[in-house]
Amino acid sequence: MSFLSTITEGKYPTHAFRKKASFPAQRRINSSCWIIINNHVYDVTVYLGQHPGGAAIILKYAGRDATLAFEPIHPQDTLERNLPATCHLGIIDSSSAETLAEQNKSRVKTKDELRVEEALKRRPPLHRMLSLYDLEDVARKVLPFKALSFYSSGADDEITLAENARAFSRFFFSARVMRPVSRCDPSTTILGYKSSLPIFVSAAALAKLGHPLGELNILRGCAAANIIQMVATYSSISISELASAAAPSQTLFFQLYKPSKQADAKQLIQEVEKLGYKAIFLTVDAVVLGNRERDVRSPWLNDEKEAMKFYVEEEEKEEVNLLGTSTSSILNDDKDMSWDVVPWMRSVTKLPIILKGIQSVEDAVLAAEAGVDGIVLSNHGGRQLEYSLPPLEVLYGIHKRRPDILTKMEVYIDCGVRRGTDVVKALCLGAKAVGLGRPFLFAQSAYGEAGVNKLIEIMHREIITTMRLVGASSVKELTPDLVERVDWESVRARL
Amino acid sequence: MSFLSTITEGKYPTHAFRKKASFPAQRRINSSCWIIINNHVYDVTVYLGQHPGGAAIILKYAGRDATLAFEPIHPQDTLERNLPATCHLGIIDSSSAETLAEQNKSRVKTKDELRVEEALKRRPPLHRMLSLYDLEDVARKVLPFKALSFYSSGADDEITLAENARAFSRFFFSARVMRPVSRCDPSTTILGYKSSLPIFVSAAALAKLGHPLGELNILRGCAAANIIQMVATYSSISISELASAAAPSQTLFFQLYKPSKQADAKQLIQEVEKLGYKAIFLTVDAVVLGNRERDVRSPWLNDEKEAMKFYVEEEEKEEVNLLGTSTSSILNDDKDMSWDVVPWMRSVTKLPIILKGIQSVEDAVLAAEAGVDGIVLSNHGGRQLEYSLPPLEVLYGIHKRRPDILTKMEVYIDCGVRRGTDVVKALCLGAKAVGLGRPFLFAQSAYGEAGVNKLIEIMHREIITTMRLVGASSVKELTPDLVERVDWESVRARL
Amino acid sequence: MSFLSTITEGKYPTHAFRKKASFPAQRRINSSCWIIINNHVYDVTVYLGQHPGGAAIILKYAGRDATLAFEPIHPQDTLERNLPATCHLGIIDSSSAETLAEQNKSRVKTKDELRVEEALKRRPPLHRMLSLYDLEDVARKVLPFKALSFYSSGADDEITLAENARAFSRFFFSARVMRPVSRCDPSTTILGYKSSLPIFVSAAALAKLGHPLGELNILRGCAAANIIQMVATYSSISISELASAAAPSQTLFFQLYKPSKQADAKQLIQEVEKLGYKAIFLTVDAVVLGNRERDVRSPWLNDEKEAMKFYVEEEEKEEVNLLGTSTSSILNDDKDMSWDVVPWMRSVTKLPIILKGIQSVEDAVLAAEAGVDGIVLSNHGGRQLEYSLPPLEVLYGIHKRRPDILTKMEVYIDCGVRRGTDVVKALCLGAKAVGLGRPFLFAQSAYGEAGVNKLIEIMHREIITTMRLVGASSVKELTPDLVERVDWESVRARL
Amino acid sequence: MSFLSTITEGKYPTHAFRKKASFPAQRRINSSCWIIINNHVYDVTVYLGQHPGGAAIILKYAGRDATLAFEPIHPQDTLERNLPATCHLGIIDSSSAETLAEQNKSRVKTKDELRVEEALKRRPPLHRMLSLYDLEDVARKVLPFKALSFYSSGADDEITLAENARAFSRFFFSARVMRPVSRCDPSTTILGYKSSLPIFVSAAALAKLGHPLGELNILRGCAAANIIQMVATYSSISISELASAAAPSQTLFFQLYKPSKQADAKQLIQEVEKLGYKAIFLTVDAVVLGNRERDVRSPWLNDEKEAMKFYVEEEEKEEVNLLGTSTSSILNDDKDMSWDVVPWMRSVTKLPIILKGIQSVEDAVLAAEAGVDGIVLSNHGGRQLEYSLPPLEVLYGIHKRRPDILTKMEVYIDCGVRRGTDVVKALCLGAKAVGLGRPFLFAQSAYGEAGVNKLIEIMHREIITTMRLVGASSVKELTPDLVERVDWESVRARL
Repeated sequence: MSFLSTITEGKYPTHAFRKKASFPAQRRINSSCWIIINNHVYDVTVYLGQHPGGAAIILKYAGRDATLAFEPIHPQDTLERNLPATCHLGIIDSSSAETLAEQNKSRVKTKDELRVEEALKRRPPLHRMLSLYDLEDVARKVLPFKALSFYSSGADDEITLAENARAFSRFFFSARVMRPVSRCDPSTTILGYKSSLPIFVSAAALAKLGHPLGELNILRGCAAANIIQMVATYSSISISELASAAAPSQTLFFQLYKPSKQADAKQLIQEVEKLGYKAIFLTVDAVVLGNRERDVRSPWLNDEKEAMKFYVEEEEKEEVNLLGTSTSSILNDDKDMSWDVVPWMRSVTKLPIILKGIQSVEDAVLAAEAGVDGIVLSNHGGRQLEYSLPPLEVLYGIHKRRPDILTKMEVYIDCGVRRGTDVVKALCLGAKAVGLGRPFLFAQSAYGEAGVNKLIEIMHREIITTMRLVGASSVKELTPDLVERVDWESVRARL
Repeated sequence: MSFLSTITEGKYPTHAFRKKASFPAQRRINSSCWIIINNHVYDVTVYLGQHPGGAAIILKYAGRDATLAFEPIHPQDTLERNLPATCHLGIIDSSSAETLAEQNKSRVKTKDELRVEEALKRRPPLHRMLSLYDLEDVARKVLPFKALSFYSSGADDEITLAENARAFSRFFFSARVMRPVSRCDPSTTILGYKSSLPIFVSAAALAKLGHPLGELNILRGCAAANIIQMVATYSSISISELASAAAPSQTLFFQLYKPSKQADAKQLIQEVEKLGYKAIFLTVDAVVLGNRERDVRSPWLNDEKEAMKFYVEEEEKEEVNLLGTSTSSILNDDKDMSWDVVPWMRSVTKLPIILKGIQSVEDAVLAAEAGVDGIVLSNHGGRQLEYSLPPLEVLYGIHKRRPDILTKMEVYIDCGVRRGTDVVKALCLGAKAVGLGRPFLFAQSAYGEAGVNKLIEIMHREIITTMRLVGASSVKELTPDLVERVDWESVRARL
Repeated sequence: MSFLSTITEGKYPTHAFRKKASFPAQRRINSSCWIIINNHVYDVTVYLGQHPGGAAIILKYAGRDATLAFEPIHPQDTLERNLPATCHLGIIDSSSAETLAEQNKSRVKTKDELRVEEALKRRPPLHRMLSLYDLEDVARKVLPFKALSFYSSGADDEITLAENARAFSRFFFSARVMRPVSRCDPSTTILGYKSSLPIFVSAAALAKLGHPLGELNILRGCAAANIIQMVATYSSISISELASAAAPSQTLFFQLYKPSKQADAKQLIQEVEKLGYKAIFLTVDAVVLGNRERDVRSPWLNDEKEAMKFYVEEEEKEEVNLLGTSTSSILNDDKDMSWDVVPWMRSVTKLPIILKGIQSVEDAVLAAEAGVDGIVLSNHGGRQLEYSLPPLEVLYGIHKRRPDILTKMEVYIDCGVRRGTDVVKALCLGAKAVGLGRPFLFAQSAYGEAGVNKLIEIMHREIITTMRLVGASSVKELTPDLVERVDWESVRARL
Repeated sequence: MSFLSTITEGKYPTHAFRKKASFPAQRRINSSCWIIINNHVYDVTVYLGQHPGGAAIILKYAGRDATLAFEPIHPQDTLERNLPATCHLGIIDSSSAETLAEQNKSRVKTKDELRVEEALKRRPPLHRMLSLYDLEDVARKVLPFKALSFYSSGADDEITLAENARAFSRFFFSARVMRPVSRCDPSTTILGYKSSLPIFVSAAALAKLGHPLGELNILRGCAAANIIQMVATYSSISISELASAAAPSQTLFFQLYKPSKQADAKQLIQEVEKLGYKAIFLTVDAVVLGNRERDVRSPWLNDEKEAMKFYVEEEEKEEVNLLGTSTSSILNDDKDMSWDVVPWMRSVTKLPIILKGIQSVEDAVLAAEAGVDGIVLSNHGGRQLEYSLPPLEVLYGIHKRRPDILTKMEVYIDCGVRRGTDVVKALCLGAKAVGLGRPFLFAQSAYGEAGVNKLIEIMHREIITTMRLVGASSVKELTPDLVERVDWESVRARL
């Protein structure tokens, strides 16, 4: 289970590579490598070099059943999409299947698995969840250690992660009274699609790490409450399965990591459009992977807790100094994207194009000039560039220096949003809507679909209460004069 | 006793509702509901839908003696005011009364009750109370857990609650020396009424939660020291009882939650005027209830401490998703108040009209233009809108941008005031007087009427000492040049 | 020993009063009160009403030996100065004297006395004292609890006490290099008198509380190192004794609390002049006593530690509500001082006149216009007005707004100075010299005269090192361009 | 072993002096003093007065084997360079040598030595080092207590030490996207010499304290990765040995403490030039030694941990009050350097001249006018002047007020750099390259040469990741618009 750290939104920490030679010979047959998934045997030799999570983790299971490791992070159609049909070697016989099932069942549980089982039993009743922090608290208890590390990690010293949230605490309300608010409507539109609240689900990958139904939990909760979900390229449920599962009128957006080969990119975009996704959010802040030390460190810390040594030590002997190795040969993401990508995308799709990961006023201006439909001011939840300006500060910069941009395209914001007050502040400063990523991952990890319902219910209550108390009865009335940037640092109890 | 959280200044947290069907049938007789209060039996069926605390809490006591639950939060005349005479079904016979008394006496005390009893025995002698913090410390020890939660809670993460107080720490004195101060007079007038100090009691509800005599303690302490008390709509002593108990020359003000029906509002205002209250402080910052999580959470936390399960579990099974339910059907407060309310109030009363809960310079200007007699810069003690600007900062904003307003009406401030220095700073910046709410609740909870006397004595000593040390011998000499807003954040030891 | 709190620089906390009637009758003979000091019997009845520490504390020892309580806080000539000769009733006979000595010797030591004895044995060797903090750390261990409370207390929440020191952390050096500094002279003059360093001893009362030799320790240390000592009105060694003990060329200044009666004031000033003191520092920031809660609280806390009840309970029963009682009838300090006092003082003395306790730029200007010889920017070590601006900030204000003042009279600063860097910063901003009060009290409490020597040695080393490293070889070269006020708050490890 | 504190970059804390008479007579033969180093006997009598670490520490080993104490802090050629050949008295006979070896081996290890041995065994595998903090953490565990104190100490309260690093947290990135970065080149030139990264090793003395190979570890790591090393005057490996060990194309710079005698200075500079060093970095911020209390205190703290008393007590009895003693008679550094030194150096060497320790914009301007080749904005790692402005703030000051300087000479910065983001920020603001001192000491202390390799590998990865994520593919593209000084204080998790 030391593979978690090696998959992070499809990019590669250098230390995850191991020399092939170090894996026990009996698990590899000559130069081919096969594994078992759900009783099916696949020859994955050709895929070793393309696996976003690296060859090492596949080789670890060479000649063995990889089902338990495979499922939490891969959509079901992964092998079909990536392997030629000839690599499906067949199905194991029923007695072997029984043996495997037996083995998996009788397997000694790890300390962490036992801890999670216990924590799941002790979850408080759902109606006691009063805030998004409560949901996160439960999630932090029921998530496997390495899954939590992946969900919660930020770049370097996680300063940007913290500052994204702290930024909201520098904006206070200059609230207005004596305004009729008995009828208060928090609904809005996003790219023309109705949304019951001015929030959306921002792409956050690998939801199955937290709950077996993964992104489906979010999909169903959003369908019930009319909230738009942006599906991640590295969703652990396939984009086609999600599209099929969506309610008829449900709006889905797609978050795109652009492959460097135009052909691959075009194929993916057109598939997405065909599946009924309503917009493409092109990620622009992740040309290389951020330095997420918490995530990289988690298998080591976990092994220490488990007192497990056998595999780690074996691996750790053969470390490879990868200094200077470019990861560009492994990842197929486009590190050389430029503004040309916008007209090119227009040429292959009719869907609205939104840039996700704008971090400066200057780029917001360029985006408006490039004619995109919108931008998400975001620094990837503090997971990419450490010391990237908090998105709320960039929004404030736009409000101060180039408010005209806010009328030329829709401007969204994500990162650090935890309270209805956060959402209302962003709208006052000109955001059209606000994305939440981690909170949805935590909510579904804690209570599955019911957790997602609860999250939306809480946001609804908090947003509407805040709107009424600042004197606004619709999102249109959320204007810049209602907020004031203060020159002191208030204490934000929770980050 | 899980009802505390459901009554908060007369407004309703959504989670407090329970489906009628869930209450044990034997306690309800067919479709009517009766309860016993002080040996009198009342049919409260018609009142179930109007009870500001919700029907559930009444139904909990259906068919039983509700005296112990009723008394700490209701004025004695509550049932008379709210029920037709025909609903008074009679008095229970003397043997039943004895049985009830026996039951109440032999009742096993809760852990929290035992803790409070012990704490009351260990209170330090009153003369050791040197500051308002000391009084609060004692109150925090002798208050029942849920009463303390209600008194001390703020909205969301209680940031505004903390910032209200921290705001004072950004203002330092530029003190003057060589000024004669042997005679130093801290008295002033408020709306023309004399006050021995430039402070008043700001409305704070449900004083009986902390002491059996509740608001009467405050009334008597104020009478002795010539301090004006603003009585809350949700006072736990009736406004008529307080009016009767007042000393002949004692000034009382009334804090109004305006009912949405003009007729009800008019009736209440005119009753207040007839009872001799001298001004109406209309609350404008509470059209809906703030999100006070500490308060909502307190019964759960308390039950955990008591290891009590029977009732809570029963209730908690049947939670109702109230997402989107408007509370407006339950509360009769006016969510659609606008500035028209001012001329309307003028038409029904001759009393001075003051708006309590102004949170922006803009609204202060509108209030002056509307011709009210005064405003209280307040965010309801941080209990309503999280991230509302601290009142002292709004006052500073008025001082900087619209000092003319300060001459057109009286401007008061409350929230976070704990020291004589706080009061003097506010007066220097233009406040006519300063309100204290929680400190009075804490003082009377700790020592009853003597606690109120002590609070006023401390404030007198601190205000007069501060005035002398800044070089002022009367409140008129408290001018803006005596304070300086500093650009650093001093460490305020106590919030 | 509960009298400590009642004496604080000669002013009176209101709670210290007790009704005479409450003291055991047998200790008072009819209506007269006598006490024994060093085997002499005095009738102190006439002095009861004038004792700056209150009558109660004297009555506590009525009819008993008061020597142990008397000595640590009174100069030896106290009774001679304050009682008519007829009140000296005589000397007790030798057997009574033996009995008293026996009693005092065999007296059970308090826990605090035992703790102090142990701490004195464990003092580190003096040469390990590297900074003023080290000396203070030792003092905090060897000082009696109540003495430490008196020395270390500040007003209210001790925010000003802390901010005085923190202010220095907002000024950084813009240091210059390539300047010859092998010869570096830190000496200066203060009012024309030579000083080996740009520091002086600021008045700090009751040094005998920390060491039997009290102010004499400071006097001797200053004589050895050519540092000027400002002697406090409430010195625990008499001003005449100090004057006699001074070295021939030693300079002493006098800190004056002006009596309200001009005759008394004139007599005191002229006595001071005759004794050879070289300047009068008139305290202007203490017309009433600050609210030093730590000090007031210390006897109660001490009694709790001692588990002593007998006396406290007795006393505490009879608390007197002194609300509104003016202390002006007891203290003879002048609360109505105005700028007239300057010409009046000129008329009775030829000594230079300095105002100690200026807290605003405005008053600095007035002082210059009044023609005084100097001012001490000071807020009394944070013991008087809470939230008084830190003196360094007032100095910075003068530097920015009225630098001309710095040329018209000498401007000193005290409060919060603990490092050579603090001294150098103040001089760069225009101070002529810097006063240290508490550090001298702590140093002599810890090691007596040797502690004072060490303090001066440390300051010498730190000042000269700082001067060299900023590129200055004399105090004249300490100019404003060498410091920069920064807009961030650095972490000052020690306050 | 109490000598560590007495050697600090060749300067002298005053308290380290002891009177000669206090050392046991039998170890000194008449008036001459000899010691044994590696079985050779030297008469060091003539050197006692010149030893930068003081005579006391030599006298401690008079008549004894000093090898263990000598080696960690002295280059091998120390005695040859400093003693006349006649002082080499000879070699001890082989049986004596055996006895000495025996003694050294059978010597009881100190608690600290045992702790270090244990810590060395428990070092995590090198590949787990993800950041410079990790390397420092390991070093802090494996370093002897006194060595760690020397490496980590700062002046006074170590505020400058902390602020140097915190300064970086006030600069955020205004990152740019949509820029091609697949090819990203972090290399640059420093004084015309190629460097694979825009960093260099800033002089940090006494590397052998942390690892037997000391500065050689750094030399080899730099050779492998093409990083330039600045060698310290007080290197524990001799400058000639380092020069010989350098790879053919390796660039070395020399950090110079200028001797006060011009002849000595000239000789040293010309030796350095002859040895092939490529530039002279003249230290200008250390005319006297900073007040490093942690370092001075460490032998006492260590002795307490060891429960060692015999020597310390003996020494501590004879403390000498050195107040007022100038250290200038002992140290031969030039305290009277002025700008004349620049033309003088030009006259004796052709090497580029760089001033290390510029702390103000004003001096940066003077340096440019003096025509030096570069400056290092530095405050000596917070070890010299407490409250010296953080170098990054001085750089920002130059960028704001005198950006022209950045084009006239190369401007470097060191102090507090721990992350690739720190380096990139400094380059954006105009620095040509960034020096790291302590991190290299820690890295080689933790893992020897491999630690140095790892440090450079980490910096390479972090710098290149940061460059790509801000949108730069070469150091030229690191421009001021990419950073923004923010007006809030972010929380820097690690200082």
